[in-house]
Amino acid sequence: MSPKKIIITGAEGFIATNLILKLSNIKEFNLIGIDSSIAKSNNKYFTSNKIQHNQIDIVSSNYLFDLIKGADLIIHLAAKGNVVESIKDPIGNFNSNVYSTLILLETMRKAGVDNIVFSSTGGALMGNTSPPVNEKSLPAPISPYGASKLCCEGYLSCYANSFNINSITLRFGNVYGKYSSHKQGVINKWIRQSIMNEKIEIYGNGNASRDYIHVDDICDGIISSIDRLLNTTSSVCETYHLGNNQEITLKKLSKIIEISSNKKLSRNFKNLRTGEVIRNCADFSLARELLNFQPKYKVEKEIPILYEWIKNNEF
Amino acid sequence: MSPKKIIITGAEGFIATNLILKLSNIKEFNLIGIDSSIAKSNNKYFTSNKIQHNQIDIVSSNYLFDLIKGADLIIHLAAKGNVVESIKDPIGNFNSNVYSTLILLETMRKAGVDNIVFSSTGGALMGNTSPPVNEKSLPAPISPYGASKLCCEGYLSCYANSFNINSITLRFGNVYGKYSSHKQGVINKWIRQSIMNEKIEIYGNGNASRDYIHVDDICDGIISSIDRLLNTTSSVCETYHLGNNQEITLKKLSKIIEISSNKKLSRNFKNLRTGEVIRNCADFSLARELLNFQPKYKVEKEIPILYEWIKNNEF
Repeated sequence: MSPKKIIITGAEGFIATNLILKLSNIKEFNLIGIDSSIAKSNNKYFTSNKIQHNQIDIVSSNYLFDLIKGADLIIHLAAKGNVVESIKDPIGNFNSNVYSTLILLETMRKAGVDNIVFSSTGGALMGNTSPPVNEKSLPAPISPYGASKLCCEGYLSCYANSFNINSITLRFGNVYGKYSSHKQGVINKWIRQSIMNEKIEIYGNGNASRDYIHVDDICDGIISSIDRLLNTTSSVCETYHLGNNQEITLKKLSKIIEISSNKKLSRNFKNLRTGEVIRNCADFSLARELLNFQPKYKVEKEIPILYEWIKNNEF
Repeated sequence: MSPKKIIITGAEGFIATNLILKLSNIKEFNLIGIDSSIAKSNNKYFTSNKIQHNQIDIVSSNYLFDLIKGADLIIHLAAKGNVVESIKDPIGNFNSNVYSTLILLETMRKAGVDNIVFSSTGGALMGNTSPPVNEKSLPAPISPYGASKLCCEGYLSCYANSFNINSITLRFGNVYGKYSSHKQGVINKWIRQSIMNEKIEIYGNGNASRDYIHVDDICDGIISSIDRLLNTTSSVCETYHLGNNQEITLKKLSKIIEISSNKKLSRNFKNLRTGEVIRNCADFSLARELLNFQPKYKVEKEIPILYEWIKNNEF
């Protein structure tokens, strides 16, 4: 059997890099990467011998059709994921996240590519719905980033029904792990500040929570989804929350970083930022049942490992 | 008190024309219309002395900001509403419905306009969810048109939370009534075919159903929403289904048209069309409770009246 042709968008990104390194150990895949190139990411160098990288912009490229033609499946990870930046530039975020996904779906339809795994979000999509959320919770985005992911989910539902494009949408918790040097998430930021002996900023009273999940758990969920899509003969349009079902407050997170570094952090409390949700935690029962998803990594053990990785790779 | 400045988009459309005629009897409104001009609609002539019409395209106009500046509220009715056409051109539908709504919201934000009534859809948004649907039902669009309305709802949720733009989203059933000469909905189409003694086409076995609602009932719901937005001091981001909570099958509808015309219809049964939902019916309890919404018009009585209107106005 010839190897499956798998396209990964956002191929220079954090999750993609971890995924490519895992997938490249599974021999039957021919991996093709697409990215418009990410500022400050040097991830390409970690994966250059594992995947064929293509620097194109989905929205404006003339080569997208030719690149994806004949693909068995697309893993669509490309997106602008920063909530605060989405509030500063809702239209830029919309073009990067929504319009590009629609163009990708249209190109898939024309090229006859009929499987896609899509990376959505639990927290931003659900806004301030009381946790734990699951697949039956009503979306209620409070930021342009959250709205952008809801739009994509709506079009995936439509393309499954109108155009027979099978999809699995994975709503990620807050993903952390290595190959994240270009990311500005709170774990990375605080680790860098701890290394530089800088004061950290806590927005709110420190009780805001997130459902942190290790990138290797997310990669396992993506790989199960690939298997599910490639091994079914019926049509698929499914959505799953991938999280830890564990609320970690900012206070607790800062404690874990203190333990990782073996030194005290100074904390500066500030007002909550517009668009950011207060609590986030997902019930992943459906993913456990149908994707055999079971997170293996604990923040208490993994954050110290990430601390060392950041120290060695960024400093 | 100076009159409230109300902007109506899609001002040459079917619902807008009926609404303008109603609203213009309520003296305190200064009505401004926006439309990019609708092929085959001559509705402008019915309302030319009731509203100031402006022919602009929301997406590309340089005048939108100036037009809406100082407005108390916007009623956003402009959209491409045809499911079958949205399947032929998903990107065109997306630009007309989603991108234009985002541009309108951004312009409202910059111009300091903070109230919007948005016209969404019950049927297309919910896809083949078992009826009756209500505000707690999970959206699952099966056509690009349905997906486009879900996107707009997501951005309204985000703009309420991130940018303090109050909104009421009204999910309409299948609206019928006069000033609809440019529309291709099944009621209008079958009435025209009956007048011309042509065979009608039924997609499916005739048991497909819709929740038909008279345009004057919809206008009453919009007017209640205007009142609610203009008379509250707290922030509002609400969604309501406006329907009849009455499933009318295509078979029954064709019977009503036979009774209206006092002549037999020939029926041609065809396959169901992609993207069209099979059943649609909405529970409007929430709108009854909070908008005092109570449909007054019955299809059995109103379709014969529409029949006469179409005969007199189109033939």
